[in-house]
Amino acid sequence: MRQATRRIAIETRGQGLVEITRDVVGWVMAQGMEAGLLTLFCRHTSASLVIQENAAPEVRGDIERYFARIAPESADYAHDDEGPDDMPAHLRAMLTDVSLSIPLLGGRPALGTWQGIYLFEHRRRPHRREVVLHVIGE
Amino acid sequence: MRQATRRIAIETRGQGLVEITRDVVGWVMAQGMEAGLLTLFCRHTSASLVIQENAAPEVRGDIERYFARIAPESADYAHDDEGPDDMPAHLRAMLTDVSLSIPLLGGRPALGTWQGIYLFEHRRRPHRREVVLHVIGE
Amino acid sequence: MRQATRRIAIETRGQGLVEITRDVVGWVMAQGMEAGLLTLFCRHTSASLVIQENAAPEVRGDIERYFARIAPESADYAHDDEGPDDMPAHLRAMLTDVSLSIPLLGGRPALGTWQGIYLFEHRRRPHRREVVLHVIGE
Repeated sequence: MRQATRRIAIETRGQGLVEITRDVVGWVMAQGMEAGLLTLFCRHTSASLVIQENAAPEVRGDIERYFARIAPESADYAHDDEGPDDMPAHLRAMLTDVSLSIPLLGGRPALGTWQGIYLFEHRRRPHRREVVLHVIGE
Repeated sequence: MRQATRRIAIETRGQGLVEITRDVVGWVMAQGMEAGLLTLFCRHTSASLVIQENAAPEVRGDIERYFARIAPESADYAHDDEGPDDMPAHLRAMLTDVSLSIPLLGGRPALGTWQGIYLFEHRRRPHRREVVLHVIGE
Repeated sequence: MRQATRRIAIETRGQGLVEITRDVVGWVMAQGMEAGLLTLFCRHTSASLVIQENAAPEVRGDIERYFARIAPESADYAHDDEGPDDMPAHLRAMLTDVSLSIPLLGGRPALGTWQGIYLFEHRRRPHRREVVLHVIGE
């Protein structure tokens, strides 16, 4: 049994999903493990991780509008030091995922046919985000 | 240290929770590991995983009604190729879990007394769903 | 490769976040692993885990008010044997996390600068909660 760890940086362009499937799968396959467990961890409280449909581009727009509706910008938050999009960003991160765990099947992450891995940026402005990848197996 | 991986198929009957606790716990115990880590991963973007109360059947109905309310079917989604329940299904999956990680205690998943593991079907029609199980330990 | 498992008990004082970062990080560091994977698992269906901003105290109040709004107490739930805060507690647990997975970097959980680990109590009354920690690595 062995393991590997890697940090990847992702430049975002404001609110929305940034697909990272190819980078993540490429790195995992390069480890040459047949079976094992992949973990992704987002090191931020105003960005998060999601697995979503990788085919239909309209899905991304619907997701963005939905989260703008259930965690809206508002004057009612006590915490607004960093602007009106700060507290909603924390809420959106809580409703989605800070970590993902994906077993390997045949040397690859066991993603379904339509599943893509995305970093979900919750702030309006572009940010540099960091995700930690870890894989253990053999 | 060793590991094992298994794919299980679950036939759903439309929206709602399908309990899979017994199958999962049985498979883990059959691996004969005293300590370790169990991971479950759902290979779909319109079904997901949740751990919920396994005792009160009314809880399941309340959960179904709640998600129908916070991620409603609507004419306002851009993505509706597969019908009005498609986009809400993706949202419900994002709000719950695509993966679960459960340590072992005494050779069994460390579920609390009232915790059951469920596949959460988000589409109206029956589907065949696949969940990947992985356990590592000794 | 080796692993360690520990159960920790947390006394809550009613709804809200209880920070457990220091206990968790201290235990992980005491294992003396350079690289690896930390998993936290909450053994309850009316409490959960979240990673959130550890700096601004107002964030916690905003989070509490937000969840009281999107998963409100109500007379409309079928399941209310344990009181009006019981079913909302299950919903709040489903919307947040039952498990968290955090890789290690340099012998420590790879938390970002502003990330703290919290137990999120969803019931009004104080409870004794149990979280299972597992770490594997070397």
